[in-house]
Amino acid sequence: MKKSLGAKTILYPTPVLVVGSYDAEGKANVMTAAWGGIACSNPPCVSVSLRAATATHGNIMSRKAFTISLPGESNAAQADYFGTVSGRDHDKFADVGVTAVRSELVDAPYVGEFPLVLECTVTAVHELGLHTQFIGEVVDVKADESVLGEDGGIDLGRLKPIMFAMGLPGSYFGVGELVGKAWSIGKALA
Amino acid sequence: MKKSLGAKTILYPTPVLVVGSYDAEGKANVMTAAWGGIACSNPPCVSVSLRAATATHGNIMSRKAFTISLPGESNAAQADYFGTVSGRDHDKFADVGVTAVRSELVDAPYVGEFPLVLECTVTAVHELGLHTQFIGEVVDVKADESVLGEDGGIDLGRLKPIMFAMGLPGSYFGVGELVGKAWSIGKALA
Repeated sequence: MKKSLGAKTILYPTPVLVVGSYDAEGKANVMTAAWGGIACSNPPCVSVSLRAATATHGNIMSRKAFTISLPGESNAAQADYFGTVSGRDHDKFADVGVTAVRSELVDAPYVGEFPLVLECTVTAVHELGLHTQFIGEVVDVKADESVLGEDGGIDLGRLKPIMFAMGLPGSYFGVGELVGKAWSIGKALA
Repeated sequence: MKKSLGAKTILYPTPVLVVGSYDAEGKANVMTAAWGGIACSNPPCVSVSLRAATATHGNIMSRKAFTISLPGESNAAQADYFGTVSGRDHDKFADVGVTAVRSELVDAPYVGEFPLVLECTVTAVHELGLHTQFIGEVVDVKADESVLGEDGGIDLGRLKPIMFAMGLPGSYFGVGELVGKAWSIGKALA
């Protein structure tokens, strides 16, 4: 029997997206968002939704670019901090001791110490209500060599990405056990 | 040292979104997508991106509604199957022995046996390239009582949601260990 929980934003998992941007004076900022994901394969695009009240929102509207620095488990506390204060009155990079690296490809900084980075140019802006959804075309993905496997791709066991789960309070979780291989475990049912 | 991986859709985690829709004859269909997530808090909206070649894409363009049935670990093989064949020549519900439940709120069916369901009306359609991004306003969320905790909210340990991870091949993973509490673990750094 299903029970109605009402009109809410309930979905699992959601990602932990650390969004990098520059303000009008060129000061690097970073904030953490969980409303977003991959939006298109070709051109490769991601979406991230931000409230207009955030400093990052204004930065991206002006610069038309952002980065996503993806935290591993060891970066979770830093990513959490980035979601708790505003870049208007904090230098969040300095506060937690990480490096703002200027992207050579887009007009935005990323977190040098985080293991996976997406550099994006804004190709569309969608006003959805409380949140504005930015579509970013992925110009490049950069990864620490320490999280790559022998095949040159991402090794999930080395990257150790985290997810955000809503709840009281919200929580970050790591990746659990393998449940099955895609385009494979369903074939046994057919 | 970071290594460039090129312009790609690499992000972890991505969700496993089983998208329900009706075709022109009212036949229920369901497909699995990983490109999407929450898009706005108010009104509550999700996004899901689909290729125009899919049957579900045409269904949603016509009906302006869809559901998302979220699989738990025990539904992973069924969800995987839904992503491997087309609803044009398969009754995917019958193929894997699950029930197409007609939503009373939107013009779309959902998977009765899956533990969490979002019922959505389409409020925007964004052509991004290979994928069309559908914005769905969440009219209601329904959950099996078996996945609710004592506070009436979702108990993640009971829901056992899965994530999709790209790779060769792609894989489904469960939720891992708690890494930390949100808006909390970062405070120790400030």
